[in-house]
Amino acid sequence: MRRQKHYFETEPTAPPPVSVTCVRRIRFSDVDALGIVWHGRYPSLFEEAQTELGHRCGLTYEAYRKAGIAAPVAQLHVDYFLPLRLDDICSVTASLTWSEGARLNTEYSIRNGDGKIACTGFTVQLFIALDTGEPLFCSPELWENCRERWRAGEFHD
Amino acid sequence: MRRQKHYFETEPTAPPPVSVTCVRRIRFSDVDALGIVWHGRYPSLFEEAQTELGHRCGLTYEAYRKAGIAAPVAQLHVDYFLPLRLDDICSVTASLTWSEGARLNTEYSIRNGDGKIACTGFTVQLFIALDTGEPLFCSPELWENCRERWRAGEFHD
Amino acid sequence: MRRQKHYFETEPTAPPPVSVTCVRRIRFSDVDALGIVWHGRYPSLFEEAQTELGHRCGLTYEAYRKAGIAAPVAQLHVDYFLPLRLDDICSVTASLTWSEGARLNTEYSIRNGDGKIACTGFTVQLFIALDTGEPLFCSPELWENCRERWRAGEFHD
Amino acid sequence: MRRQKHYFETEPTAPPPVSVTCVRRIRFSDVDALGIVWHGRYPSLFEEAQTELGHRCGLTYEAYRKAGIAAPVAQLHVDYFLPLRLDDICSVTASLTWSEGARLNTEYSIRNGDGKIACTGFTVQLFIALDTGEPLFCSPELWENCRERWRAGEFHD
Repeated sequence: MRRQKHYFETEPTAPPPVSVTCVRRIRFSDVDALGIVWHGRYPSLFEEAQTELGHRCGLTYEAYRKAGIAAPVAQLHVDYFLPLRLDDICSVTASLTWSEGARLNTEYSIRNGDGKIACTGFTVQLFIALDTGEPLFCSPELWENCRERWRAGEFHD
Repeated sequence: MRRQKHYFETEPTAPPPVSVTCVRRIRFSDVDALGIVWHGRYPSLFEEAQTELGHRCGLTYEAYRKAGIAAPVAQLHVDYFLPLRLDDICSVTASLTWSEGARLNTEYSIRNGDGKIACTGFTVQLFIALDTGEPLFCSPELWENCRERWRAGEFHD
Repeated sequence: MRRQKHYFETEPTAPPPVSVTCVRRIRFSDVDALGIVWHGRYPSLFEEAQTELGHRCGLTYEAYRKAGIAAPVAQLHVDYFLPLRLDDICSVTASLTWSEGARLNTEYSIRNGDGKIACTGFTVQLFIALDTGEPLFCSPELWENCRERWRAGEFHD
Repeated sequence: MRRQKHYFETEPTAPPPVSVTCVRRIRFSDVDALGIVWHGRYPSLFEEAQTELGHRCGLTYEAYRKAGIAAPVAQLHVDYFLPLRLDDICSVTASLTWSEGARLNTEYSIRNGDGKIACTGFTVQLFIALDTGEPLFCSPELWENCRERWRAGEFHD
């Protein structure tokens, strides 16, 4: 039922995902009575990598605000495989996968201190107009521009 | 892709779900720069109802500890439909659905201040032995007892 | 060094504090590896009672926004006496104490499951203009009105 | 009433404080409806630097656990001067100040994206026995050893 990768299918001709990895120590306030990270904290861990990913691709809250849009999360999914323990130096990877639609499909994975996959997951974000809150069914210019630069290879070293 | 209910299928002969609803105000610290609850906080909202559900059914952390087991979350899923706003009085429902297996399947829904479904989701919990961390493939006695009382109608008024 | 009460001094002629108490269970996600509430979570517990206190007195975020002001916290202090444990039914009290100045002085106390004082603390909030961010050295009308109703006995049963 | 530094007084002959600074971006989930970090999140920011400070000095949760002790926070204080905004790259400094007593006195300061002091604060931690929960009025060996290494200059480059 749980799978370790590839929540989103992409065309073979699509540009490869843009990935960013953050490394950080699991702190005392991160863990629960069992000494492991509580399942509800994983979205925060995901966000650490996703924030840097957004800055890489120009998909920041500031850019959204200037464009008069927002990109709320419509779906979140997490599969947990191994616990993350206090003082573990874990690495969190967020990968934006190519989509032709008006949506951001992001996959996540977290490796524990031993380098093993502790968790995978994904979020789907849709676009809305900031003033009305109405959903945008066509890709906003911001997202069009991002895909152009992506296809041009700007986000990969 | 997102559906509003019934993440888990149950036999027609299975006892109905056990549900608990908590009502609470959305506070200042719950909301983000858009004045709505950040998607990563929903697992905490789910937990508020699930905690009371656990106390109703005898599935508490204290009971787990005494039984030498734990019930970590193996899967989390959230579908977001409408935002939750500052000062909304929302209601969070957690429903344990019947399962013959060694797992806890819980569905969640949150209604916003207008009584509309703002979000649905689910968690799957598996059992592990507390000393070894090894998964338990057979239902622990605690879960067997819970199901007996459930089938006897003890959890419904 | 730590004292259990009365962080703010008031004139004998000042109206008595306005207090609101919230009761809630300590949940699994509230506690740390020692099975007790992590010190950094207490401001959230304080906020639960303070939110209801604000609604009692008309000092809500919505009222601030309409008045073009905000009331950021300038000082926070917490003295910890006893731990709060998982499943404790604790009660959190927030008390707004009288002040003639352009500031909100709020005292807090939390009682554990045995009814003993587990913690006390205070916050000081100052007023700023929402558009410029500049501090307001005179009491805004909202706060004047609140004090009038307070002196008239409206906030006490 | 609020001061920017030196919450703890030390003898002129005491070794200088041991300080660690962490730099990190303010993320979307860190900020509130005003687009700034909510006051109750500062203890988490403090903890990020304090965790690294603990690893520098051998004062980790793991070391406490092996020594059969814990070091709960008995007092927390925060003075807020300037807001921390979304996307600010802030730096958080934790400084352990010398103490002859059975207590850890830690001062904190946070600089905003412009390098200005946004906040200062302190925590006091006392020691307890892990099995009984009783306070330790004499310094545990762990803390004695830490002070020896500190006096020998081991924690400063």
